[in-house]
Amino acid sequence: MVPHLITALTGPINELEQRVLESMPAIERWFRLEWMEHTPPFYSSVDLRNAGFKLAPVDTNLFPTGFNNLTQDMLPLSVQAAMASIEKICPEAKNLLLIPESNIGNSFYLSNVATLKRIFTQAGLNVRLGSLDPSITEPTSLNLADGNTLVLEPLVRNRGRLGLKDFDPCTVLLNNDLSAGVPRVLEHLHEQYLLPPLHAGWTMRRKSQHFKAYEEVAKKFSKLLGMDHWLINPLTVAVSGHDLSAGAGLEALQTQVDSVLSKTRRKYKEYGIQEKPFVVIKPDAGTHGAGLIMVRDAKELTGRMSGTQDAEALTRLIVQEGVVTHERVNDAVAEPVVYMMDRYVVGGFYRVHADRGVDENLNAPGASYVPLAFSQASQLPRLGEKPGSSGPNRFYMYGVIARLGSVAASYELEVTDPEAEVYA
Amino acid sequence: MVPHLITALTGPINELEQRVLESMPAIERWFRLEWMEHTPPFYSSVDLRNAGFKLAPVDTNLFPTGFNNLTQDMLPLSVQAAMASIEKICPEAKNLLLIPESNIGNSFYLSNVATLKRIFTQAGLNVRLGSLDPSITEPTSLNLADGNTLVLEPLVRNRGRLGLKDFDPCTVLLNNDLSAGVPRVLEHLHEQYLLPPLHAGWTMRRKSQHFKAYEEVAKKFSKLLGMDHWLINPLTVAVSGHDLSAGAGLEALQTQVDSVLSKTRRKYKEYGIQEKPFVVIKPDAGTHGAGLIMVRDAKELTGRMSGTQDAEALTRLIVQEGVVTHERVNDAVAEPVVYMMDRYVVGGFYRVHADRGVDENLNAPGASYVPLAFSQASQLPRLGEKPGSSGPNRFYMYGVIARLGSVAASYELEVTDPEAEVYA
Repeated sequence: MVPHLITALTGPINELEQRVLESMPAIERWFRLEWMEHTPPFYSSVDLRNAGFKLAPVDTNLFPTGFNNLTQDMLPLSVQAAMASIEKICPEAKNLLLIPESNIGNSFYLSNVATLKRIFTQAGLNVRLGSLDPSITEPTSLNLADGNTLVLEPLVRNRGRLGLKDFDPCTVLLNNDLSAGVPRVLEHLHEQYLLPPLHAGWTMRRKSQHFKAYEEVAKKFSKLLGMDHWLINPLTVAVSGHDLSAGAGLEALQTQVDSVLSKTRRKYKEYGIQEKPFVVIKPDAGTHGAGLIMVRDAKELTGRMSGTQDAEALTRLIVQEGVVTHERVNDAVAEPVVYMMDRYVVGGFYRVHADRGVDENLNAPGASYVPLAFSQASQLPRLGEKPGSSGPNRFYMYGVIARLGSVAASYELEVTDPEAEVYA
Repeated sequence: MVPHLITALTGPINELEQRVLESMPAIERWFRLEWMEHTPPFYSSVDLRNAGFKLAPVDTNLFPTGFNNLTQDMLPLSVQAAMASIEKICPEAKNLLLIPESNIGNSFYLSNVATLKRIFTQAGLNVRLGSLDPSITEPTSLNLADGNTLVLEPLVRNRGRLGLKDFDPCTVLLNNDLSAGVPRVLEHLHEQYLLPPLHAGWTMRRKSQHFKAYEEVAKKFSKLLGMDHWLINPLTVAVSGHDLSAGAGLEALQTQVDSVLSKTRRKYKEYGIQEKPFVVIKPDAGTHGAGLIMVRDAKELTGRMSGTQDAEALTRLIVQEGVVTHERVNDAVAEPVVYMMDRYVVGGFYRVHADRGVDENLNAPGASYVPLAFSQASQLPRLGEKPGSSGPNRFYMYGVIARLGSVAASYELEVTDPEAEVYA
């Protein structure tokens, strides 16, 4: 299915699309050179916002779920990317231990785990599932909607190695973002590959660090294309303090909100954009769009912060330029999500939410998923198509911007790597 | 489209399919280990014959044409494989010089070249076409059926480097099998990557060498799966002499034909196969199924060899066990052809010929092409499907056997590498 692209007709995004398409060989070479210097995240998904005048990543997930929402047609790309990745990491690998979220009951999430298992099995690994849930004390079967079954097994820690009963993996793959903290069973696994590394989990990860790295990447990339990096970069500042919901903390937060709003206003004026700027306030750590607040004026914050966040979150926030989404699928507001494995774009979909506005977070109950244009017959980009008229061309551009998010995550993980400090 | 698999219901091929599927992780690991030791051909295509009781490669093409016959849906796999390949060979590459066959007028072949150009452009290279045809003395436009245009340019040799006017490539990609000999302009290009290497061309390549390597690979692989390698290996012997069309030469040839026929007969008896064995006599060098002779009795050869081959070909032949094809698409005899780029299967199709028999060469005028089962919605193999009933499972098996052909080509090119001898 080709989603209806309402941004098809006007706006600077078409210039960006055209420039991206014309620069395809240079862009791909740029990525090759980046990946010579930096290790790609094992897998990732990037939420994008296409405002028509601006296209920017707003969330880079290093423990992507939702592989079940990709089209079946695209799964061979994931398999091939997984093969390339395994070949580099551990070519003699036989066994892969996949650790899903502990709260695995959700049937959509189960289907994601089944898809990951299928991808890595076909890539040439024996895949078994280990659970961080202490209540799993023996192999436990879980039924999938399609009639198949997944077996969740208790983890067995044996000195330096993690495995299952009679299963010693070379690689441990986390599909669990460690929001609940790093379990001791995952610490000090120096004999095995633990992917992604522990510091990619939300216990240690900070959005401010990611967007700082993304700004650096966006500037480099924009220089290559000779364009303003604001067109692909959401202004982002970090705010920290004892308590950002009141007093001096709240004032500091309001000052940053004002600052981002006025910078955005100047940019809107420069590009003749007739919209009212807004900002999104997000916890510096944490995922799934939890605790997001949208404001168009710093004054709106008074009295609104308390109760919306836990005390920990109220000490570290980011203030980010809001990017509306002007994409729609069947009249519902939509935002593209792009999936990557190693350096490769392996799929994507539109996250669609009928009950949300263009400036709201769509990652919320009630969202549905429509596979991206990549699923149509002729899915390679084509030069010469009218900008905005071609699903594959639009998707190619999404894949490029999403990969910038992935490069940024790579920079971020280098900076935050606790092992790296040892040698610094 | 899912071709109708008439081999679906019976025969040992289903056991093979089941064993291949069940052993998927072990098989993929086996390939990973092979590719750690051996360099995959840059690209290749393998013609397979599925007799129902036996599945074997009968031709491994190292300068594959026909990329235009792959489905559009699968092209992203080629792009991704090309990216992985470029990353390894020359990550800083900007320019790729593609040298097509000199006889480029055929519109199908032109479409193949356009597809290759598109794949490598999207993989991140500036692609231009250089011609070995001396009549091309200035940039020449060729019109494609879809309205697009390809420009063929004269080659410019500049000391150690080959290029075009204002175009200095890091890599030169041959889509020309050098049947007409190695042009001097391609010799001694030590500063650039020339892919595939010159000794992969038919000036130097010998089928006997390939099938010798294939036998070695088939034996190793069959040991892994605990099966008789004959099920995937066509018996092949080389015959050489002053003139194999008459006298002592013909007698030597007949002796080998008898020998292959009687070995095949014994195997048929062992497996209870009620067919009459035949052999295919092929020139030891050369492509496109030219000069093939099929016989069921050595006596048939008397008087039949002269005139069918050129004198050169009559000094070196191979005698190969004939493998019938029991696949049909819409009642026409069909054989699968699998395409690979680097180590990855990137597509395939059925070569279909309505006017040919099950024991005949289908690579002949009048053949048509039907994209392989891989193009259907759910194209990853699935364990648990009834053997023979699933297009993707069947195609996975084809991909495995075709990759054995590709491993064999890698062995073959190592043995025949003239550069390697220098250091031996």
